[in-house]
Amino acid sequence: MAITVVGSVAYDSIETPSGRRERCLGGAATHFSLAASFFTSVRVIAVVGEDFGPEQEAVFKKRNIDIQGIERAPGKSFFWEGSYLDNLNEAKTHITDLNVFASFEPKIPPAYADSEFLFLANIDPVLQRRVREAMPGVKLVAGDTMNYWIKDHRPALLEVLKGLDILLINDTETKMLAGINNLVKAAHAVIDMGPNTLIVKHGEYGATAFFGPGSISQGHNGPYHAFRAPALPLEEVVDPTGAGDSFAGGFFGYLAAQPELTAAAFRRAMFYGSVMGSFAVERFGTERLQALTRKEIDDRFLLFRELTHLD
Amino acid sequence: MAITVVGSVAYDSIETPSGRRERCLGGAATHFSLAASFFTSVRVIAVVGEDFGPEQEAVFKKRNIDIQGIERAPGKSFFWEGSYLDNLNEAKTHITDLNVFASFEPKIPPAYADSEFLFLANIDPVLQRRVREAMPGVKLVAGDTMNYWIKDHRPALLEVLKGLDILLINDTETKMLAGINNLVKAAHAVIDMGPNTLIVKHGEYGATAFFGPGSISQGHNGPYHAFRAPALPLEEVVDPTGAGDSFAGGFFGYLAAQPELTAAAFRRAMFYGSVMGSFAVERFGTERLQALTRKEIDDRFLLFRELTHLD
Repeated sequence: MAITVVGSVAYDSIETPSGRRERCLGGAATHFSLAASFFTSVRVIAVVGEDFGPEQEAVFKKRNIDIQGIERAPGKSFFWEGSYLDNLNEAKTHITDLNVFASFEPKIPPAYADSEFLFLANIDPVLQRRVREAMPGVKLVAGDTMNYWIKDHRPALLEVLKGLDILLINDTETKMLAGINNLVKAAHAVIDMGPNTLIVKHGEYGATAFFGPGSISQGHNGPYHAFRAPALPLEEVVDPTGAGDSFAGGFFGYLAAQPELTAAAFRRAMFYGSVMGSFAVERFGTERLQALTRKEIDDRFLLFRELTHLD
Repeated sequence: MAITVVGSVAYDSIETPSGRRERCLGGAATHFSLAASFFTSVRVIAVVGEDFGPEQEAVFKKRNIDIQGIERAPGKSFFWEGSYLDNLNEAKTHITDLNVFASFEPKIPPAYADSEFLFLANIDPVLQRRVREAMPGVKLVAGDTMNYWIKDHRPALLEVLKGLDILLINDTETKMLAGINNLVKAAHAVIDMGPNTLIVKHGEYGATAFFGPGSISQGHNGPYHAFRAPALPLEEVVDPTGAGDSFAGGFFGYLAAQPELTAAAFRRAMFYGSVMGSFAVERFGTERLQALTRKEIDDRFLLFRELTHLD
């Protein structure tokens, strides 16, 4: 089933211990849609500036991603510059230029209307909510957010949470959103805000899904009702940018491709999320996702399975 | 098969967000032996002072732990005072009084000589080496260490590593020991120092075993030859003291109880390590391990299995 994703399509200048790249194609919707495109059809809603040309378009088209919802506006595309020199787990932001995103009003192409899956990537919660309300017929809605929206745009974010089935954020964001220092208690508090499932991304340690009432998984492990997918210990992390969005794309893309939403499918989807995250960081920007094959993805899935499998 | 463990038997004064305890029974060898005692017979080598009485003895005896190797010396037992008020993942040490440990010369009772498993808990590497050399016939040797020995007693520690099959340390210690900031590369560098297997403990995120030549696991996952056991997301961590030693006790105890050392047994042992660590933190000091039953342990093992299991 098709996924519609709304989020940023941007240019990133990135510095890591492995080197530096100027203005490579990035943005949450870009990473997400490339990762998800290996599993299902993906449709993007975003805005770009006059600096978005045929070369960038080709990256999406090569993966059969529908970009009729990427609006062209006068001016420059969203631009982010950051570095990970001291700590590969945390980006230091140097520049954030919203540019055309500052006045973005998402429009949903009629051809997107039959999408059954919706992903609200990390953008202004006001925009997330608008897209959510414009697509009331979707079957499953997942979303992402970040510390900035949690701290300074809480009321708008809380409205978005009410319309989500699945929220994907990291440990710090979970604790910040709940105002609780214990991860499990914080996760349950977040579930009380709207989403029936919370996926907490732990970076190099994988991700944990917490399930609430109404979730796909009616688990057997009682008060500890959760599922943990590992991350792959990697010899080299070239660039962590987009790892979380690639996780979300692999997770949601795999799920959307299943004939039925079962607990077992959800668990495999978590592993595919980890798989896509592990590829994303192997090169700068979207380089690795662009060069990837489905065979490589399935081989790595088996590697992940082996990594935690008990006989 | 029996395990001999050498390490500290001590008193700990601990403050955490859940409260405070004065002079509770602690020390690495105490946590380790209690955890391992649920799986196999355990023999302790340590030194205590005149403040170690029948009440403390009874804790070991109730679990059938052999303490004839716990020497009584004039003076006070090893004492540690620490807190975890800001961060449950990292102890802040207030006081370390070595007391009788300052002049400890480990003596191995003749009855311990047929032990096939040896655990060198976190003590001065000079003492670890002495015990290792006094027990040349053991089948499998595992050990622990900490940042202090890595930084200031490196030559002695490197000698110990040559005599180890398995080293258990945390992420920071692995990187510090190798002088390498990437965990996988650091792990391989540590394996080159002696142990064929390195278990890196990630606290609330579980633990990863890295396997080198000669290790139990001749894995299928090629350059990523590793195994990851999750930790249980816990609603309340009352006191993290001894979690790592309890992990080691569960891991090594389970392994020592198996008829054969196979890769599958090693993987289950990692899970049992995580299980024992998850119990240890539920109450102060050794309180939870003292009250535990084998049924609770096996039930929680199933919970852990469920936590990461793919159908």
